[in-house]
Amino acid sequence: MTTTTLAHPAPPEGPGVPPSLQRAAALVAPAIDRAVGRLSPELRAPVEHHLAGGGKRVRAALVLLSAAAAGADESVGVVGAVAVELVHNFSLLHDDIIDEDRERRHRPTAWAEFGVDRAIIAGDALATLAIQLLLEDPTPERVAATASLAAATQAMIAGQADDMAFEKRAEVSVAECLAMEAGKTGALLACAASLGAVLAGAPEPVAEALHDFGAHLGAAFQAIDDLLGIWGESAATGKPVGSDLLRGKKTLPVATALDRGGEAAAALRAVLDGPLDDAAVERATELLVDTGVLAELRSLADTELGLALAALARADLAPPAAAELRELAAFVASRDR
Amino acid sequence: MTTTTLAHPAPPEGPGVPPSLQRAAALVAPAIDRAVGRLSPELRAPVEHHLAGGGKRVRAALVLLSAAAAGADESVGVVGAVAVELVHNFSLLHDDIIDEDRERRHRPTAWAEFGVDRAIIAGDALATLAIQLLLEDPTPERVAATASLAAATQAMIAGQADDMAFEKRAEVSVAECLAMEAGKTGALLACAASLGAVLAGAPEPVAEALHDFGAHLGAAFQAIDDLLGIWGESAATGKPVGSDLLRGKKTLPVATALDRGGEAAAALRAVLDGPLDDAAVERATELLVDTGVLAELRSLADTELGLALAALARADLAPPAAAELRELAAFVASRDR
Repeated sequence: MTTTTLAHPAPPEGPGVPPSLQRAAALVAPAIDRAVGRLSPELRAPVEHHLAGGGKRVRAALVLLSAAAAGADESVGVVGAVAVELVHNFSLLHDDIIDEDRERRHRPTAWAEFGVDRAIIAGDALATLAIQLLLEDPTPERVAATASLAAATQAMIAGQADDMAFEKRAEVSVAECLAMEAGKTGALLACAASLGAVLAGAPEPVAEALHDFGAHLGAAFQAIDDLLGIWGESAATGKPVGSDLLRGKKTLPVATALDRGGEAAAALRAVLDGPLDDAAVERATELLVDTGVLAELRSLADTELGLALAALARADLAPPAAAELRELAAFVASRDR
Repeated sequence: MTTTTLAHPAPPEGPGVPPSLQRAAALVAPAIDRAVGRLSPELRAPVEHHLAGGGKRVRAALVLLSAAAAGADESVGVVGAVAVELVHNFSLLHDDIIDEDRERRHRPTAWAEFGVDRAIIAGDALATLAIQLLLEDPTPERVAATASLAAATQAMIAGQADDMAFEKRAEVSVAECLAMEAGKTGALLACAASLGAVLAGAPEPVAEALHDFGAHLGAAFQAIDDLLGIWGESAATGKPVGSDLLRGKKTLPVATALDRGGEAAAALRAVLDGPLDDAAVERATELLVDTGVLAELRSLADTELGLALAALARADLAPPAAAELRELAAFVASRDR
C-alpha cells in the first residue's frame, strides 16, 4: 500500500513518463517521510515545505534501477535512493538562496517562505541525515556507498562554487564550463547510477560502468537544461526564461557561442559586457541562435546520451533493469521532460 | 618538525594554557592544511580566510587525549581531531551568517569578506570533507567514528534551530534552554571527548564515560560562555558585550532569571518585551545581576564540571591522559580562558 502524504504530491504521470520514476516515487516517499520525521520540529517545517514541491525522483529511480541492474532487488537500493534525494534537496535548498530564486516549481522556495537562516540549516540537516541513514547499518556495502556519496557531494559543491565564480568572469572556456557542470550536475547523477550496484555488492567494473553511464547522462541532461534555461519552457522548468542570462551565468550555450568566435560571438560578448536588462537578454538570446549553438548543444546532448548507453552496454547487467535505465536516460535527455 | 602556516596562527600560549592545546594545534594544523588543500580553489579562499582566525583547538585536544586515555597513541586520534575541527568550523561559518556577526576573533567573518553565498558553500564543503577524511580508510573504528560525528552534527544543527526559534519567543524555560545548549554546544564536545577512544577501539563503557564527560563539560562551558556573552570580556570573546541580549537571544542567564519570578524577573521581562536598544541592554544587564543569576550560573558551571570529572573517574583511563583531560576541563570551564 502506498500513501500519498502532504509532503509528497502524486508522482508525475502521463505519456512518456517512465514507470521507473513512478515506482521510485512510491518507494522512497514513505522512507523520506520517516527520515525527515527524525528531524527536530524547527528543522522539519522548512524541509517539509521544500519537499512538498515534489520533484521527478530521477536520482532515486537511478539508484533503484542500479541495484536491479546488478541483480539485486530494488529494495536494496532504497536507503541509497533516499540518501541521494536528501543530498539533492540539500543542494537545492542552498542553491535557491545563492541564486536568489524565490520560486521553485511554482511555489515559494524555502528561504522565501522561512528566511535564509532556516533554509541554510534545513539544508545542513538533510546533508547530515543522508550520512546518518546510510551508516545506520554499517555493512561494507553501505560504508562504500557513504564514501561515494560524500565524494559526489564534495564534487557537487565544487561545481557550485565554480558556477558562482563564473558569473563574475567575462569569459569562461567550454572546457571549464563542462568541468563545472560535471561537478554541479554530473557527480550526483553518476553516484546515483552506481549507488544501487555498490549497495548490492556488485563487482567494481559493474559499478564503474554505471558510474560512467550516470556521468554522461548528467552531461546530456545539463546541455538540455541549459537550453531550457534560455529558451524555455517556463512551464516545465518553473523558472522564468532568460533568468540564467539575466544573472550573468556562464552556461554551456554562452561559453560555446563565445568560443566559436566570429561576428555573432563578438556581438554577444558586447551585449553580455553591458548592463543585463530584459532587452539585453532578448538580444543575447537572438545572437545565441545566430551562432548555431542551439543545434550544437542538441547534438552534444545526443552524443552524451550515446556515450551513456555505450557505458551501459559495457557492463553485464540484468536485461530488464538495463532496458529501464535506457528508457530513463532517454527521458532525462529529452527536451520536453 | 612543526611549521606555522598562514592559515594557522601560533597556538595560544601563556600561563594557564594547557600543554594539550598546544600539542593539538601543532598536530592538527598540518593535517587540516592537507585536507583543505583538497578543496577546489574557489572554496579554499573563504575556508582559509576563516581558519586563519585560529581557534583554541579545544575539540581537537579532546579527541587526542581521548585516544591517549583509551591507551592508544595520540596520533590515532588525529584524523578524528581534524574531522571534529572541520565540523566545528562548518558550524561557525554558518552561525556567523545566521547571527549576522561581521567579526570573529577581531577579523571579518567569511561572509563579511566573501559574501553569504560563498560562506554557505564553504561551510558545506567542510562538513562533507570531515566525512570524506574519516571514511578514507574505512576500518570499523573509523566507520563508528563517522556515525558518531554525523549524529553529533545533526544534534548541533537541531540546537542551532532551537536557538534561532527561541529568539522569536517571549519566554523559554530553563529546561528548553539547557536542551538547546546540549545540542548546540554539548553534542560536538561530547563526540570529541569520546571520538579518540572510538578510533582506538576502546570498550563501549570507556567511550560512554568519555562522552558523558564531554557533555557535562559542554554544559559548564556554555554556562560560562553565556555569562561572558553578557558581562564580557570582549577581549576574550571577540564579540561586543551585550550582543546576545541585543539580539533577543534566550540564553541560560535570561531563561534562569525569568524562571525565578519575583520583582527583578518581572522588570526584566518588561525590558525584554520592549525595543532592544543599548539602554535596554544596559538595564537588562543590571536586572540580571539583581536576580542573582550570575552566581547561580557560576555554581551551575561548577556542578557540571564536577559531573564531568566524576564521569571521567568512572572509566579505567590511562592516568597521564586522564590528568590532562581534567586540566583541559578546568581550563574550558574557567572564566578567563
